[in-house]
Amino acid sequence: MTPWLSARAALTPSLPALRVAGRELDFATLARRAADTARRLRGIGLREGDLLAVLLGSGLAWVELAHAAPLCGATLLPLNTRLTARELAFQLADARPRLLVHGPDALADAARRAAAALPGLARVGIAPGDAPRLHELPADPGALRDELVLEETAAVLYTSGTSGAPKGAELSYANLLWSAVASAVHLGTVPGDRWLACLPLFHVGGLSILFRSVLTGAAVTLHERFEPEAVSRALDADDITLVSLVAATLQRLLDARDGRQAPPGLRAVLLGGGPLPAALLERARALGFPVLPSYGLTETASQVATLPLHEAPRADSVGRPLFGSRIRIVGDDGVERPTGEPGEIEVRGPSVMKGYLGRPAETAAALRDGWLRTGDIGLLLADGSLRVLDRRSDLVVSAGENVYPAEVEAALLEHPAVAEAGVAGEPDAAFGRRVAAWIVLRPGLRAEAEEIRAFCRARLAGYKVPRAIRFVPALPRNAAGKLLRRALPEASLDASQ
Amino acid sequence: MTPWLSARAALTPSLPALRVAGRELDFATLARRAADTARRLRGIGLREGDLLAVLLGSGLAWVELAHAAPLCGATLLPLNTRLTARELAFQLADARPRLLVHGPDALADAARRAAAALPGLARVGIAPGDAPRLHELPADPGALRDELVLEETAAVLYTSGTSGAPKGAELSYANLLWSAVASAVHLGTVPGDRWLACLPLFHVGGLSILFRSVLTGAAVTLHERFEPEAVSRALDADDITLVSLVAATLQRLLDARDGRQAPPGLRAVLLGGGPLPAALLERARALGFPVLPSYGLTETASQVATLPLHEAPRADSVGRPLFGSRIRIVGDDGVERPTGEPGEIEVRGPSVMKGYLGRPAETAAALRDGWLRTGDIGLLLADGSLRVLDRRSDLVVSAGENVYPAEVEAALLEHPAVAEAGVAGEPDAAFGRRVAAWIVLRPGLRAEAEEIRAFCRARLAGYKVPRAIRFVPALPRNAAGKLLRRALPEASLDASQ
Repeated sequence: MTPWLSARAALTPSLPALRVAGRELDFATLARRAADTARRLRGIGLREGDLLAVLLGSGLAWVELAHAAPLCGATLLPLNTRLTARELAFQLADARPRLLVHGPDALADAARRAAAALPGLARVGIAPGDAPRLHELPADPGALRDELVLEETAAVLYTSGTSGAPKGAELSYANLLWSAVASAVHLGTVPGDRWLACLPLFHVGGLSILFRSVLTGAAVTLHERFEPEAVSRALDADDITLVSLVAATLQRLLDARDGRQAPPGLRAVLLGGGPLPAALLERARALGFPVLPSYGLTETASQVATLPLHEAPRADSVGRPLFGSRIRIVGDDGVERPTGEPGEIEVRGPSVMKGYLGRPAETAAALRDGWLRTGDIGLLLADGSLRVLDRRSDLVVSAGENVYPAEVEAALLEHPAVAEAGVAGEPDAAFGRRVAAWIVLRPGLRAEAEEIRAFCRARLAGYKVPRAIRFVPALPRNAAGKLLRRALPEASLDASQ
Repeated sequence: MTPWLSARAALTPSLPALRVAGRELDFATLARRAADTARRLRGIGLREGDLLAVLLGSGLAWVELAHAAPLCGATLLPLNTRLTARELAFQLADARPRLLVHGPDALADAARRAAAALPGLARVGIAPGDAPRLHELPADPGALRDELVLEETAAVLYTSGTSGAPKGAELSYANLLWSAVASAVHLGTVPGDRWLACLPLFHVGGLSILFRSVLTGAAVTLHERFEPEAVSRALDADDITLVSLVAATLQRLLDARDGRQAPPGLRAVLLGGGPLPAALLERARALGFPVLPSYGLTETASQVATLPLHEAPRADSVGRPLFGSRIRIVGDDGVERPTGEPGEIEVRGPSVMKGYLGRPAETAAALRDGWLRTGDIGLLLADGSLRVLDRRSDLVVSAGENVYPAEVEAALLEHPAVAEAGVAGEPDAAFGRRVAAWIVLRPGLRAEAEEIRAFCRARLAGYKVPRAIRFVPALPRNAAGKLLRRALPEASLDASQ
């Protein structure tokens, strides 16, 4: 089919597409800019089948690259801007992109360092002063792709796993499109809607907003980051009808609004990225915020279950599966559980990923007969809606970012004084959950919590660094020696901070 | 993916799905009834991969069958209720369905006669008194399909061609779904919309309304046939927001309303099935009817171009291609024509049919590199919208029904007194176009127009029988002897009526 932005620009060229950093672009203009970007990417050697790595803050350049990649027949590889050079280097070495487009300053520095060990990787910046700079490079005059193959991989998004090593989830054009279709028919999104995107574009939750927009003809207002005052102002002044938040950002938004009611035009607040406290939902509701709890994963190209608009919001359910997707609950014995009984949440449908890039064994373990094993625990209610009881035990969702304890533990274990390490989430007023570490020191050695945090900061993105570090004599383990992360909070302390 | 009605019923079980013959059903009820129908179809031997022929007037049973077929893994074969037994027999022999479900009275009679020569074909009625009757048959207790394969053929719809022999266009689930998605994002259809379907369900224009409804959660009000007074009353009293019409039915509707304004809730009148006279558009506009001219074919699973809602309706354009589809204009030399220059309209996109059932040569002629040759003549305007200049010369669109001259000519040539026959459309105040025949009699033989019409009525559906018959000494032909249908109106007459 026609590349989506081209299709949308042909259909409604003069409708607003994007408002960002004080600029407003219509679909025709955005499509022209994306095509120009695509020609320059081709000019510096991006070819069909290549991966295009993007290490940029949210902004116009990011949106142009997202729509330029399909015009080159290339796969998008969004990189988390909060990762360390070391973490970036791992993902780049794993995915082997042809080209890395990066932002200025710290991002340019991280890109340079991460790419140092990858001689085949070209780098290009987008800011003034970058050398080479994308928009100053010669454009390839050849024809761009005018046809998408739905089965091809549109994007690879890294997500960590129980092993601690991040894996690249391969999302096809069909995955992204079905996700956008299901969202559109769920919310009844139309031209005239305006979606406020203040989630990072390197997350599926932010990226998917771009594709929903071109499918439906709705506009996007893009914020570089979540700033509660700026989001609050945009809601009041910018005709926002839809916004995607996580519990922590909703709370900060309500704090910033200081009791002011939601603007009447706001149709839905999509709430993903972890559990929604009932008290927060109640507070939002009292102020007129139409909160729709939802459930989704990187591997499902964003939400797969969301409360319908016409039902009263509730904190104990994330709604029914979106159109075309199915959810079932499976017990430890591999048998499907009846309504009301808890077990592992499995998802099947057209937005479920193709697999993990270059990892057939992990793909086979995650996808069985088309069913994605999420590792999350939940149950189905009598009305067919899903209650999420617990995110997978190896996942801490903190302010909407996923932190995988195994990855943090691996970093901690590199410290010379650390003999054993266990990481888990614990409640946090501001972020929902925060990362905590329980550490057993090597005999005769000592270490300060602050020193260990500094050690982690050199290796891990800031949001993964444990906020609390507790030194304990032993970690809770089962008979086979397997770490019992859920039991960590009860480990007896001999020091804490 | 999940079968569509099942998906919709899981998502919004209590929203209204269908209002028909004074009954109102929600999606859960309709899904239960479709599943019950599917079990009975299986009980009488319908199996995966079979074709299910349906010869029924529009009504609840038709809708149930349309949603039951996918649950059986069967392909729907909608039959035009206006065809003669002879025409039906041709299509049944060509498609070889396993089962024919028919309506009462004349339909039962036609079904019986058409099926007489096909001993392998089971027949079942749906009305009281039919023997056997579908809903009194035992249900198969086995599990129904819970997964659609998008590439499989969902429906075969017969459409005639230049050869005069009808061909079955194979539409996949993906074709139907993409058509529904494109319509939904074009019109911004939401739950709360209500689509009045008064086109026959055996036409793609009627059938596609059912699939759009389950995708979007919009309700359908289904009329058995187009009755201007009933449609007018429904518009005023039934909260209709969308309606599909053809020029002839729009005109009769406006006549019946006698100057009354359109109800304020009516969002769009989708107008397909041939050209829209500018005067009719103007009349509709003055009364507040938001007419959206559109262009589509059976082979594209309904509309592929439609004016956008936010643009002023015009009679000289059918709008831009729907999301995901492309249209180009190609000259006789096979080369694409620039904007503004006329040529054959070609369509490419996810709703273009798989091909003609069992006819590889005709499929290859119609589909080249994914482009469907429509045979229609048009041009693209500077804004990317399509102007249809002329339907293919071998097609007469009369009151929304397609009549293929070659098929009518073949019937005329069976008459012993007819030496040569040519058929073409001519303007008609009530139906837009009407079928006219020019006949050369055999030397020394005579025939009356009324006798020839009666001869045709035994062989052709009523709407195909020539309204006007003109006896002429010779037909216009080119040097190679090919009939020049466009020149028929200038053939010199020696009798007319």
